[in-house]
Amino acid sequence: MDDRARPAAAQDHRESWTVCADTCACYPEAMSHRLESDSMGEIEVPADRYWGAQTQRSLQNFRIGGHRLPKAVIHAFGTVKKASAMVNRELGKLDAEREGLIVRAAEEVASGKLDDHFPLVVWQTGSGTQSNMNANEVIANRANELGGTPLGKKGDAKKHIHPNDHVNMSQSSNDVFPTVMHVASAQRIHERLVPAVAKLREAIEEKSRAFADVVKIGRTHMMDATPLTVGQEMSGWAAQLAFAEKQLTQAEDGLMDLALGGTAVGTGLNSHPEWPARIAAKIAELTKMPFRTAPNKFAALAGHDAMVAASGATRVLATACMKIANDVRLLGSGPRAGLGELLLPENEPGSSIMPGKVNPTQAEAMTMVAAHVMGNDVTIGIAGASGHLQLNVFKPVIVYDLLESVELLADACDSFREKCVAGIEPNRANIAKHVEDSLMLVTALSPVIGYDAAAKVAKTAHAKNITLKEAAVSLGLVTPEEFDKHVRPEKMIGP
Amino acid sequence: MDDRARPAAAQDHRESWTVCADTCACYPEAMSHRLESDSMGEIEVPADRYWGAQTQRSLQNFRIGGHRLPKAVIHAFGTVKKASAMVNRELGKLDAEREGLIVRAAEEVASGKLDDHFPLVVWQTGSGTQSNMNANEVIANRANELGGTPLGKKGDAKKHIHPNDHVNMSQSSNDVFPTVMHVASAQRIHERLVPAVAKLREAIEEKSRAFADVVKIGRTHMMDATPLTVGQEMSGWAAQLAFAEKQLTQAEDGLMDLALGGTAVGTGLNSHPEWPARIAAKIAELTKMPFRTAPNKFAALAGHDAMVAASGATRVLATACMKIANDVRLLGSGPRAGLGELLLPENEPGSSIMPGKVNPTQAEAMTMVAAHVMGNDVTIGIAGASGHLQLNVFKPVIVYDLLESVELLADACDSFREKCVAGIEPNRANIAKHVEDSLMLVTALSPVIGYDAAAKVAKTAHAKNITLKEAAVSLGLVTPEEFDKHVRPEKMIGP
Amino acid sequence: MDDRARPAAAQDHRESWTVCADTCACYPEAMSHRLESDSMGEIEVPADRYWGAQTQRSLQNFRIGGHRLPKAVIHAFGTVKKASAMVNRELGKLDAEREGLIVRAAEEVASGKLDDHFPLVVWQTGSGTQSNMNANEVIANRANELGGTPLGKKGDAKKHIHPNDHVNMSQSSNDVFPTVMHVASAQRIHERLVPAVAKLREAIEEKSRAFADVVKIGRTHMMDATPLTVGQEMSGWAAQLAFAEKQLTQAEDGLMDLALGGTAVGTGLNSHPEWPARIAAKIAELTKMPFRTAPNKFAALAGHDAMVAASGATRVLATACMKIANDVRLLGSGPRAGLGELLLPENEPGSSIMPGKVNPTQAEAMTMVAAHVMGNDVTIGIAGASGHLQLNVFKPVIVYDLLESVELLADACDSFREKCVAGIEPNRANIAKHVEDSLMLVTALSPVIGYDAAAKVAKTAHAKNITLKEAAVSLGLVTPEEFDKHVRPEKMIGP
Amino acid sequence: MDDRARPAAAQDHRESWTVCADTCACYPEAMSHRLESDSMGEIEVPADRYWGAQTQRSLQNFRIGGHRLPKAVIHAFGTVKKASAMVNRELGKLDAEREGLIVRAAEEVASGKLDDHFPLVVWQTGSGTQSNMNANEVIANRANELGGTPLGKKGDAKKHIHPNDHVNMSQSSNDVFPTVMHVASAQRIHERLVPAVAKLREAIEEKSRAFADVVKIGRTHMMDATPLTVGQEMSGWAAQLAFAEKQLTQAEDGLMDLALGGTAVGTGLNSHPEWPARIAAKIAELTKMPFRTAPNKFAALAGHDAMVAASGATRVLATACMKIANDVRLLGSGPRAGLGELLLPENEPGSSIMPGKVNPTQAEAMTMVAAHVMGNDVTIGIAGASGHLQLNVFKPVIVYDLLESVELLADACDSFREKCVAGIEPNRANIAKHVEDSLMLVTALSPVIGYDAAAKVAKTAHAKNITLKEAAVSLGLVTPEEFDKHVRPEKMIGP
Repeated sequence: MDDRARPAAAQDHRESWTVCADTCACYPEAMSHRLESDSMGEIEVPADRYWGAQTQRSLQNFRIGGHRLPKAVIHAFGTVKKASAMVNRELGKLDAEREGLIVRAAEEVASGKLDDHFPLVVWQTGSGTQSNMNANEVIANRANELGGTPLGKKGDAKKHIHPNDHVNMSQSSNDVFPTVMHVASAQRIHERLVPAVAKLREAIEEKSRAFADVVKIGRTHMMDATPLTVGQEMSGWAAQLAFAEKQLTQAEDGLMDLALGGTAVGTGLNSHPEWPARIAAKIAELTKMPFRTAPNKFAALAGHDAMVAASGATRVLATACMKIANDVRLLGSGPRAGLGELLLPENEPGSSIMPGKVNPTQAEAMTMVAAHVMGNDVTIGIAGASGHLQLNVFKPVIVYDLLESVELLADACDSFREKCVAGIEPNRANIAKHVEDSLMLVTALSPVIGYDAAAKVAKTAHAKNITLKEAAVSLGLVTPEEFDKHVRPEKMIGP
Repeated sequence: MDDRARPAAAQDHRESWTVCADTCACYPEAMSHRLESDSMGEIEVPADRYWGAQTQRSLQNFRIGGHRLPKAVIHAFGTVKKASAMVNRELGKLDAEREGLIVRAAEEVASGKLDDHFPLVVWQTGSGTQSNMNANEVIANRANELGGTPLGKKGDAKKHIHPNDHVNMSQSSNDVFPTVMHVASAQRIHERLVPAVAKLREAIEEKSRAFADVVKIGRTHMMDATPLTVGQEMSGWAAQLAFAEKQLTQAEDGLMDLALGGTAVGTGLNSHPEWPARIAAKIAELTKMPFRTAPNKFAALAGHDAMVAASGATRVLATACMKIANDVRLLGSGPRAGLGELLLPENEPGSSIMPGKVNPTQAEAMTMVAAHVMGNDVTIGIAGASGHLQLNVFKPVIVYDLLESVELLADACDSFREKCVAGIEPNRANIAKHVEDSLMLVTALSPVIGYDAAAKVAKTAHAKNITLKEAAVSLGLVTPEEFDKHVRPEKMIGP
Repeated sequence: MDDRARPAAAQDHRESWTVCADTCACYPEAMSHRLESDSMGEIEVPADRYWGAQTQRSLQNFRIGGHRLPKAVIHAFGTVKKASAMVNRELGKLDAEREGLIVRAAEEVASGKLDDHFPLVVWQTGSGTQSNMNANEVIANRANELGGTPLGKKGDAKKHIHPNDHVNMSQSSNDVFPTVMHVASAQRIHERLVPAVAKLREAIEEKSRAFADVVKIGRTHMMDATPLTVGQEMSGWAAQLAFAEKQLTQAEDGLMDLALGGTAVGTGLNSHPEWPARIAAKIAELTKMPFRTAPNKFAALAGHDAMVAASGATRVLATACMKIANDVRLLGSGPRAGLGELLLPENEPGSSIMPGKVNPTQAEAMTMVAAHVMGNDVTIGIAGASGHLQLNVFKPVIVYDLLESVELLADACDSFREKCVAGIEPNRANIAKHVEDSLMLVTALSPVIGYDAAAKVAKTAHAKNITLKEAAVSLGLVTPEEFDKHVRPEKMIGP
Repeated sequence: MDDRARPAAAQDHRESWTVCADTCACYPEAMSHRLESDSMGEIEVPADRYWGAQTQRSLQNFRIGGHRLPKAVIHAFGTVKKASAMVNRELGKLDAEREGLIVRAAEEVASGKLDDHFPLVVWQTGSGTQSNMNANEVIANRANELGGTPLGKKGDAKKHIHPNDHVNMSQSSNDVFPTVMHVASAQRIHERLVPAVAKLREAIEEKSRAFADVVKIGRTHMMDATPLTVGQEMSGWAAQLAFAEKQLTQAEDGLMDLALGGTAVGTGLNSHPEWPARIAAKIAELTKMPFRTAPNKFAALAGHDAMVAASGATRVLATACMKIANDVRLLGSGPRAGLGELLLPENEPGSSIMPGKVNPTQAEAMTMVAAHVMGNDVTIGIAGASGHLQLNVFKPVIVYDLLESVELLADACDSFREKCVAGIEPNRANIAKHVEDSLMLVTALSPVIGYDAAAKVAKTAHAKNITLKEAAVSLGLVTPEEFDKHVRPEKMIGP
């Protein structure tokens, strides 16, 4: 079929993509097709796929990248279409038989069973219209099949389920797509990311408690400072994660507002007055999350500020993870020529010749994820700011990038926890040596021998590269016993 | 004085800066100086300035840019130092006389009276240490003066107020600076930005109510769609601003956590056990904002996630403002060859030859501000992610960029409201013409003449470039009266 | 096998990824394995895969995301390993038999034949060490197989090809990985992206020539301005693309510097003095691109400024594409209530009821790609700035994001050209009407009737909403014939 | 005057700005004014300012922020207006007397003498029209004054110099403003930034040579690796700066294209055919830089890709500076509990109690500048991508942010060089100790005692926390003399 052919050059390049790539390639000439049609005429569709003409056209028109819409979005389409059929039935707009079949087919979409029937990429129309049509077509074809009409056959017209008239009833792509953006994002943040962050925080808190008594030297500006405990240091990491959890939870709240009820431009033309509240309540019931109808549908279609805000929350998390992973990297550096205060799990062989070379690979993966999330956040900001008049047409990239950030951060938190944090141990010998060497402990002598004498001790130790104790004793200012009595770092870790 | 000389090349460049620039330039050789000293020796300080040796060194060591710390930060130093003196007195650490003098001097700092005594730029040490010392030095020198000792003279040692020992008592730069970052940012967001956004929202809501009955054509993908009213369209703008206000208010909450009590590394060494809660309560009392002591001081010194989150909230506002201003620009385009649906106030002469050319200059200023805020947000994210161990040393740039975003957005909201929104009027003739011309209204004929006939009407109108009414009547499908009876856009603006 | 089990929660989430995802899932318990070993002991590897123990460990340790390294990077590994074997042979370090087998296996990697044997994801160690080992292991195992030793068997030790000793000879991951980053990026920019941009530019230039005589109204600030031709307008788009091509070509030059020869830290320890120049020359020969040895190997391992610069060049292209696509979107808006000056190809059915509603979907895909590239550019900047001491450990994310930008832009340029630009036609009626209506043409009357009278004409036309001609004639200032003689927009499109 | 009053709330906030801020505030009610007029009527202007009505209106309409246009832009206006008068004279469009007076006034603008007469802020119309009018008005008024007509008086009409008719002759704001953007940016990059980078690079190269023989331990992944010299390490920094210099120089080339000759929309309406080439040549002559007329004026007005590319080059520099400053910070960490390999100049007192605490403040200022530049780069990208049709209306923010990046980087390079790099010394004792301690040197024993025995030495040393030598000798594998003979780090720093 001519329409499906593409220039050799364009095909070639696709070799370099790692992602699933060109769906068309999965359906070579030889395979069987059926004909589907729409207002532009007939078009061949792979015989074993539930999608229809509109999906097929988008597939052929947008051979860009290989990033399919995230599965969470596809599954959310299943949930939203199921809820829609149920509410349309409640409002008397849809008969019971059609509702039942649509619900069954939609549940299959929601469950992931039909993922292979959603081939469209992110880089399509900015309203996600064809992905909505993909859902409508798949559900309609599968529902008709469940109703007894084999795929590709025309059944009883009175019972026929139509993608637009029945599956998309009361809806427009312009309000369905922002709805699935919110549903999918809220679900993944709530069910996947926040728990992953909480587990990482708890793992750090456990370590913090375990090392609560290990006194170590503090460092500000990377320079030696007054002491604290390893537990205190780690408690700061946990506190940063707790703050990020709070930001993510607040961001979920913004995502609770659903656009459904706005239809084409926000006015709700062709929908039932009770529809907005009912459909939001039904989705809330099915997802067990407190979704509600958006207070203003014009904003819900034309802006995506709640998505921008949610991305901002993932950025806060990325910021915290970057800091924590960098600290792990610094504290684990060495083993001989670094700070060497933390022992990290050895997950991969270091150099065969150099025992003790454990590269902080989990920290590196985490910081790469953090950098990537910070970039995604910029994309989402630009896309979110680019709505015009009644519609923002950057919807697919917004939801793709946000979900990518969500999934990557969750995976990275799990991996960092399991493969790194869980196995961290303090190198007590190095930690003790750093405390002992520190010139800054001289502070504790000030009340005993006076500021000037204490300063002299510190300066002498620094100049001669000896310990404070050696300096103090050699200057005849204290005895070794007196020094040990007064200079006690473990007393310097609180007010 | 040699130390103050700088290479000719470096001086030259400063000519190109528009900001206040080189403070040193304000104090030519000829002017009088006094000598101040610190542990590195003596240094000349302008005779009429309250700052001391540490401030002077920073001034000479960091000849970078001309961006002084924002005044809001300087004033917050005044508030924090006043509160500190009061609590130190309450805890019995400071005598009443010194407290009284410090409070008086600090109030002058807080009031802005001593702004000219804070010359340091943003691009200094990343802990803001010298700016804290600047505050300590100015307050100490002014307090001593208020106590009767002329500037540059040594008074009674027993009554002498020392920058470190008394003004900085119970504090470290490392906990004072994050505290003033939060106080200044929260104050400006709460007192300046949120009210400016609210006023802009209210002005838009007023216009939305005023034009609630003006039916216009909707546009999705920039293409003609179903109708809505001008009021509905503007309500979407207001809803976006309302969401941004909520984000900013949530961000304020994160800023309520104060670092004071952490001192040098977060342990609170050298502070009183009651100090953290008391100082936060005192600052809350003085500012009338619900500040509280941060739950974890290690995170408060080493991370600035609440600042990153606050920047994220300004980014949400920028996103909304970009969208609104672009809509205004699009809807006001023309007067003849654009959309021409909104009449914008004429603030500046257009071309002398072309009446009616009103450039949407306020929208342009707003979108430039939005782009700048989105860049600041990236800086703050990078800076916030770059803390190491016990300290983040990007503090000055974080607070500078956040406050710049806050002030710019507030100013831009005011200007956009006063000079643009307040004067917007709909161009009712153009709006009506667009509705009348629209092919999409044929939807209303569907129930009367059937889908196929309606489609034929639309296609005929499009092909012949005539109106729907002309097409419908010429095809003999309806009379003009019937057409007018059924095709009523004003009935298409709701469910 | 315990080591391969993972918590249920972590497995669940993977359902939401669209990319190929968890390779482990492809190898269920039941499938056959062989044992491979390294210094950490034995580990099961799928029986039919060429990879070895180090690859398997990374696979199990980094269950983050599903983004495998780009195929272009894998293929570049093939090229670099082939070149290395050849030069090692030339330098007398490798025997002819081993060289021959390594070259054959490496060619298979370069050709893409062994892509399925490279399962590792981007989010691994930041040096890409395990991906280098993946290449070494696959090539060694395949070479041994080609030499007659079946996979998993031990052959003649004297002929055995070892991943490290022979395939990685004279190399370190630390210099191989930056080398493949440069090779893959330069190849894809040169062979894929620049030609795609050039084709789009040429397609626009063709349209520019075709519409060189279509006079239209200009718009500045979105407001009516003096006229130009459609061809002139489009020539500006082509000029922007030409500038982007130049930037990309300059960026290629920076990528010509290869890190090989630096080995572990940049000193070249364990490599032959002639190695750096020879290996670069060999890679140049194989790729037909002028690669050369990097002038400083310490920078080549620890910084990735040439990659940052190349990303900057993709950002310039994204900037241009965003502008062009937005112009297409604006000029194609309507059909009745927009600017309506360009007719865009109708690729998908618009609303079934509204003929003429052609959504600018290709422009939307392009602008989404542009926004995504701008985000990738931020990631690459952050990652590029984060090198420490002798190594930058953000290598995989840098090359992944850059190649994603390169491929997406190339695909989007192709799609935009084929599906949009190629079919653009001017709507001559609308264009003419806008020119005719324009008040600004009055400029041409100034020399004839004087400035004041001309202004009166314009003001009258604006106030009464009539044409300039109607105004001029009604005011008795010119006859219709005189007006037509003087007011000729086609004379206003040049100096 | 009512028009100049502003709401109390708006005035208050301005207190928090540090920049020069509200120009109006400089002209209290009591000061004297003169009346100027334009097509909107009369307006009061401060009596001693050269600006006119259009400048004054912009001043009052845009009370946003306090960021005046950079002085480099104002000075470039002087150069461009001077060149324009000269070419207009050459083309016979301007009489010699007017030309002479305009040239004299324009030279004063170019020299900076009239900076105080350019009060407008960045956040104005996006075309910079009022800033162009500001230049026209100031030059006209000053030229008339030079011609004998006191400011505010009407002179001989035949000799009168008009802002539009004479100073702006052959020009439009739409081509003048992009011209000054390029001229100012190219000049500052060429004359200020590139030399500053080169000096920093040379200072590092000098240090690199000075420490060419200091063998130190390498670190990859922050972990101990094979050795190199301090000189080699620093040579990598210098190489990164050299690459950045090249990028900046390439970026200058893009800026050589001047928009003048495009006038209002790019067609060059109302300009002379020879004007574009002549004016570019004149500007080249005056600035001694190879400016040329832009090949396409439509792109030159509507896109700013050369500015985006130049910003990308500053970002490459920021990336390099971030890396270098972080290395300095890491290598200077300690003095006791850090890496402690570099001794940094002590510019400010550290804690009075802790000698040796030298905070790496110059590195901190540098990294803050780098983060800020990376944010500016995002702003410029967004702004550059936001042109529409015949004009990009983000011009002022683009040039402001680019010049801010240029000046900040230049200042930071100077400061980092003078106050940090110039004084860096290696801490030879610490460096030697790290080398001596390193387990990785065992590599050198492999050829002597075999791989297995060498590995045993390393493992023993690591497990018992002793030196390699101690381990090797205690295991009876070598004598101390043999160890010293073979293990020589200074032999491991090259191929």
